[in-house]
Amino acid sequence: DYEVVIDTTLEDGALTYGELYIPGDSSDEILLSAHICHPSLANDNLSGICIATVLAEWLQKQPRRRFSYRFLFAPATIGAITWLAQNHSTLDRVKHGLILSLLGDAGHSTYKRSRQGTARIDQVAEHVLTSSGDAFEVRDFVPYGYDERQFCSPGINLAMGCLMRTPDGEFPEYHTSGDNLDFIKPASLADSFEKCLRIVKIFENDDVLLNQRPFCEPRLGKHGLYESLPQDTNVQNFQHAVQWVLNLSDGQHSLFDIAMRSKLDFSIICKAARELSRCGLVISQDKRNTV
Amino acid sequence: DYEVVIDTTLEDGALTYGELYIPGDSSDEILLSAHICHPSLANDNLSGICIATVLAEWLQKQPRRRFSYRFLFAPATIGAITWLAQNHSTLDRVKHGLILSLLGDAGHSTYKRSRQGTARIDQVAEHVLTSSGDAFEVRDFVPYGYDERQFCSPGINLAMGCLMRTPDGEFPEYHTSGDNLDFIKPASLADSFEKCLRIVKIFENDDVLLNQRPFCEPRLGKHGLYESLPQDTNVQNFQHAVQWVLNLSDGQHSLFDIAMRSKLDFSIICKAARELSRCGLVISQDKRNTV
Amino acid sequence: DYEVVIDTTLEDGALTYGELYIPGDSSDEILLSAHICHPSLANDNLSGICIATVLAEWLQKQPRRRFSYRFLFAPATIGAITWLAQNHSTLDRVKHGLILSLLGDAGHSTYKRSRQGTARIDQVAEHVLTSSGDAFEVRDFVPYGYDERQFCSPGINLAMGCLMRTPDGEFPEYHTSGDNLDFIKPASLADSFEKCLRIVKIFENDDVLLNQRPFCEPRLGKHGLYESLPQDTNVQNFQHAVQWVLNLSDGQHSLFDIAMRSKLDFSIICKAARELSRCGLVISQDKRNTV
Repeated sequence: DYEVVIDTTLEDGALTYGELYIPGDSSDEILLSAHICHPSLANDNLSGICIATVLAEWLQKQPRRRFSYRFLFAPATIGAITWLAQNHSTLDRVKHGLILSLLGDAGHSTYKRSRQGTARIDQVAEHVLTSSGDAFEVRDFVPYGYDERQFCSPGINLAMGCLMRTPDGEFPEYHTSGDNLDFIKPASLADSFEKCLRIVKIFENDDVLLNQRPFCEPRLGKHGLYESLPQDTNVQNFQHAVQWVLNLSDGQHSLFDIAMRSKLDFSIICKAARELSRCGLVISQDKRNTV
Repeated sequence: DYEVVIDTTLEDGALTYGELYIPGDSSDEILLSAHICHPSLANDNLSGICIATVLAEWLQKQPRRRFSYRFLFAPATIGAITWLAQNHSTLDRVKHGLILSLLGDAGHSTYKRSRQGTARIDQVAEHVLTSSGDAFEVRDFVPYGYDERQFCSPGINLAMGCLMRTPDGEFPEYHTSGDNLDFIKPASLADSFEKCLRIVKIFENDDVLLNQRPFCEPRLGKHGLYESLPQDTNVQNFQHAVQWVLNLSDGQHSLFDIAMRSKLDFSIICKAARELSRCGLVISQDKRNTV
Repeated sequence: DYEVVIDTTLEDGALTYGELYIPGDSSDEILLSAHICHPSLANDNLSGICIATVLAEWLQKQPRRRFSYRFLFAPATIGAITWLAQNHSTLDRVKHGLILSLLGDAGHSTYKRSRQGTARIDQVAEHVLTSSGDAFEVRDFVPYGYDERQFCSPGINLAMGCLMRTPDGEFPEYHTSGDNLDFIKPASLADSFEKCLRIVKIFENDDVLLNQRPFCEPRLGKHGLYESLPQDTNVQNFQHAVQWVLNLSDGQHSLFDIAMRSKLDFSIICKAARELSRCGLVISQDKRNTV
């Protein structure tokens, strides 16, 4: 038997939210949002607040950033609605975003697509989960859940998905006192952070390169980029990455597009791109435009 | 041993077909066709004639209709060819259609797509069969079978599919004296009618609504449209339907589009739309245009 | 233990390649390339050279050809690069092509798609393998392998795929003395030739026809093209082919498109088209344009 005492009054009050803006080279923004309104619950959503905080710290330590980042810590629903109302005229700056929640439980990662469904954030999150080698699930957007309800409402429609582990309502401890620090697995929290970081790194490092020798293959051996019989898987993957970057750097494919088509990890595609840039075999499309 | 006596003469005659036109608010037509030329066969095609007749009766009883309906009762092939020749100049009125045949046997429902393949009738029929929960089959168009051979010939190419149960030639009683009234199952006939009716109701009730509060979610509780913890599946489905209608009523999605994307039944989407209209949260795009 | 003696000098030399041009009615070319640089290896690539030679012989025996054909016998990589450099200004003549290699081993056929991925050659090769009834595999393009590395480099990007049996590096005899004449199976070599020939015949015989009676079905019986109850599968397939050709000869579909959609073999579609042409029920779109 329970006795519940609700001691409350109805009067004018104030809504408090936290906002952190980390500027980058471009005014294009990546928005990361965590709800803060569930008292005493660890997974829902101290885990999201924690990941957002560590990610902000990591970003601030970088010497420069391509994108600007905005972190929002606000009560669910009413906080997101308030922030969107106050920033309506500048929402077009938000190019990509994530709602961060439920990131510390023992379950595998779950990504819920944006309302747009095939936005870049949707492709990037799915690539990170796929190339992790871990179990994961990608779900289509539905207009209930967390603050994607607001960020993906029809008049807002931001390219924001939701990164979670076990989704809301699908674990017994959800919205109970069982969602406490014991329910949080350090390895899960670390893994969630790692996946967020990989997503951010893709946006930071993606680029459209132009192959400067597009007619047939250039001789790679003299640049130290070719072994005729690589025995090591990493060496072979790197060599394939070099060939993919050369083959698809035609102005139509970014490095991330190349990672998706080749099914190689974005990081090895970037490494190949750096080596090819060093040799002058590819140059950035942007750099060419500014010459 | 058989002795077959064919007592016939070759002379000029006449071709008879029946046509019933039921006008609606729009001159856009839905064409329903049943072949009448197989003497003494019950499933092929007294069943189709029967469903068409009861459907016509139902439509005539409605106080108003959005579409106009045309029922055609004609001998297969030559009847359809004759009707198409006589109505060639007004065929652009026919927006959707169904060939009705083989609708009374014990087999599950089969829908054969139009030549166009992704016409609205194809989407609507597939949605009705999918959301029925019953076994069913959807097949691609082939240029043999019933009068889709004529209605979907290359110069006609109407958006007409064929609704059946077990297809022609795929049951032993086909085109034999075994296709008699005993072969007809009342429950199958009733189920076929129900599915035709659901198809018609989708065309009659589909609409493009516009969310009048497209920036974030409106407060639904004060309209009695929100329960925070619905325990009942029907209540929860209704609430999800309300959220889907709000989320996708952006002028790009009709109610039927919303039913397809949400995988909720069209009827519950319509119910949600009615409630939201009542509260003024959505209005019909057409109504807006006429203001 | 091995002792390897490499007796070589570095001095200016010459690169030799063989080229055979067989003219057709059109200057549009189909390019067939086989590498010739692997000494003493039978499958890699005497098999490809052999198939190319027999195919050239077959083509030269034809009274006329629709396409012009160019056969290239060149050392891998450097030969293809040289030929492409010397013919850069006329590469737009090459409409379709195949790299022929590894065509004699006991494995099933493998087709590696062009960089374009959905080029006509990709559709045609897949149709031939599918309709053969034999086991086969179709793989996506990767920028390593044989001379597709050059023919499909980003500045060249020809519509050329690679027809093989067991791919390079995937059989133990690959690049060893075990790849000798004993490793070649006459039946495999004959089957590879047959499949090349089917590919060529599709390009030679494809055409866009126009149904001259596009409103409903014409009466086929008086032309001997209709049996009401065909008992024989071949007769029934032919009749279906007649109906498909009539139904889709609307100016939007070539005979090969019709074969793909109907899932009937291209040869039976062609046979139906010939019969329908004979009766005047279809005419070639090109012929109409020249009238």
